[in-house]
Amino acid sequence: MRVILDAMGGDNAPYVPVLGAVQAVKEFGYKVFLVGREEAIKKELDKYSFPVSSIEIVNAEDVVSMEDQPSEILKKKRNSSLHVGAKLLKSGEGDVFVSAGNTGAVMAVSLFTLGRIKGIDRPAISAILPNLKSQTFLLDVGANVDCKPVHLFQFAIMGEAYARYVLKEENPRIGLLSIGEEDTKGNELTKGTFKLLAKAREKGLNFVGNAEGRDIYNGNFDVIVCDGFVGNVCLKLSESVAKILAKILKEEIEKHFISRLGALTLLPAIKGFKKRIDYAEWGGAPLLGLKKPVIIAHGSSNAKAIKNALRVGVEFAETKVVEHIEENMEKYGKIDGN
Amino acid sequence: MRVILDAMGGDNAPYVPVLGAVQAVKEFGYKVFLVGREEAIKKELDKYSFPVSSIEIVNAEDVVSMEDQPSEILKKKRNSSLHVGAKLLKSGEGDVFVSAGNTGAVMAVSLFTLGRIKGIDRPAISAILPNLKSQTFLLDVGANVDCKPVHLFQFAIMGEAYARYVLKEENPRIGLLSIGEEDTKGNELTKGTFKLLAKAREKGLNFVGNAEGRDIYNGNFDVIVCDGFVGNVCLKLSESVAKILAKILKEEIEKHFISRLGALTLLPAIKGFKKRIDYAEWGGAPLLGLKKPVIIAHGSSNAKAIKNALRVGVEFAETKVVEHIEENMEKYGKIDGN
Repeated sequence: MRVILDAMGGDNAPYVPVLGAVQAVKEFGYKVFLVGREEAIKKELDKYSFPVSSIEIVNAEDVVSMEDQPSEILKKKRNSSLHVGAKLLKSGEGDVFVSAGNTGAVMAVSLFTLGRIKGIDRPAISAILPNLKSQTFLLDVGANVDCKPVHLFQFAIMGEAYARYVLKEENPRIGLLSIGEEDTKGNELTKGTFKLLAKAREKGLNFVGNAEGRDIYNGNFDVIVCDGFVGNVCLKLSESVAKILAKILKEEIEKHFISRLGALTLLPAIKGFKKRIDYAEWGGAPLLGLKKPVIIAHGSSNAKAIKNALRVGVEFAETKVVEHIEENMEKYGKIDGN
Repeated sequence: MRVILDAMGGDNAPYVPVLGAVQAVKEFGYKVFLVGREEAIKKELDKYSFPVSSIEIVNAEDVVSMEDQPSEILKKKRNSSLHVGAKLLKSGEGDVFVSAGNTGAVMAVSLFTLGRIKGIDRPAISAILPNLKSQTFLLDVGANVDCKPVHLFQFAIMGEAYARYVLKEENPRIGLLSIGEEDTKGNELTKGTFKLLAKAREKGLNFVGNAEGRDIYNGNFDVIVCDGFVGNVCLKLSESVAKILAKILKEEIEKHFISRLGALTLLPAIKGFKKRIDYAEWGGAPLLGLKKPVIIAHGSSNAKAIKNALRVGVEFAETKVVEHIEENMEKYGKIDGN
């Protein structure tokens, strides 16, 4: 597979993206296009050895910063690594585009360049979260802060395709994030969405019903949909709870002498624990609803996270999720009043 | 102080509330009115020894279940422990009312019986959450699932009074839960709320700005406001993340022989850790916006959680938060277009 990587995106670009790309071509055998300022990328690449034909630099002079407003970028930075990368994807020279840059900008430029899947009103950013059994596919986590029921309904249809074909769930269990299990619980948005999903259930969609905050991590659902405001709050809250609990545990260990002695023997367990909750293991966030696959990686990604984001991107492209979303729209998307 | 306790509320009533009351009168010296079916309460009370004059039973024949709809309870169960308890509070025979019953029902009956503070449109349920430094006061966590900016604005004013007088924060830092620190980030609701809070800041309210999901537990804010849908999702998500991380850690310890040996020495640390994240230590959720103090305890409260809910209730009453909310409304509540 041929991956297009924004070499200028993220907190430590181009150092981190270049190193992530080198690791990915060596470990997975991908072909990677590094898009960005040629000189800067070349300087980084020269540090490493790798099969020469596997990495190609594509020059793009403009650099998008975290402070740039998406609307400004569309107008004024037309030769940015985002624009050049998205165009390469559109023209078919690569199979997937990955960026750890400014989320709003990646979203805006990708949408502008690639266009939406027919029938999908709003693309969504998703998160693949580890749960007790496997993983939960949560969307939207930040692209759409004010939604209507039809948007959440479409998120469910897109999530179903991703969970089925990429995460290999045979018949993905779909949940609607709400504040009670009962069908009648929720706010105006979720109550409206519930009705649409219940209709799609009659056509075969495996809509289980309302999910609660606790269901994101307990493995009772494969796909959970919510608006981008709620999803983003959940994502940031989870990251912080995990960090804070680790810190409290550490403080308690340091308080008790006997525990301090025992803590050394715990190192293998703590390492396994960290690996299971470390986002770097899970890679980037698929952007769903566009005509081609795009992955948004965390701005603070390290090289390993970039490498894994490329892997997630290749799975996204290989499994033809875009086509499967189109099939799902055909199957479930036509609903009265929708 | 005189506490009115719903003896019929919660998963194991009247066993748990009665035991919690006995522990509270012994440890704190409160006077407790146990409201509910006299026979059932008496049977439980007979198991324990305590200063006889400190506990009094007030009979109420109707029992509210978790399945009862709030509107039905108002009409059909007028002699429920909720009605009788709220009336005792209204008449001044007690200082605070505590219930671990059906949240919607406690809310509805309390609102109906006690009425709202002048100028407050919607009472809110709050949660006192442990953070890295002290605690965060989060509201609303479930009473109001669809809110307008003015409601969140009033939550902030109420939260300020609680944090200042009960949690003893000198100048409580108030945050608006959103999806980015920048003033312009958020959805329609938070953007509208931001404007109202910014106006109150000119009058002296310590509104710091937007908070993110991670700020609920990191101690950067004393009060965080959000709508009841988002707050409820956050609360349930946090409880589950904590439980799941503990489970993952346990699994990892069991996987590694050397860690298994060391785990024994960790017991004191793990005990301290559990104590710090255990909701039972923190007691119930203050219901703010009513003319008298009401506390809603967790439905699955054990006796210790009930005892601590009574303590939280007494602090709520003693510090005269209701009067301080009225003062805050006078000071900050009159805003153009509000």
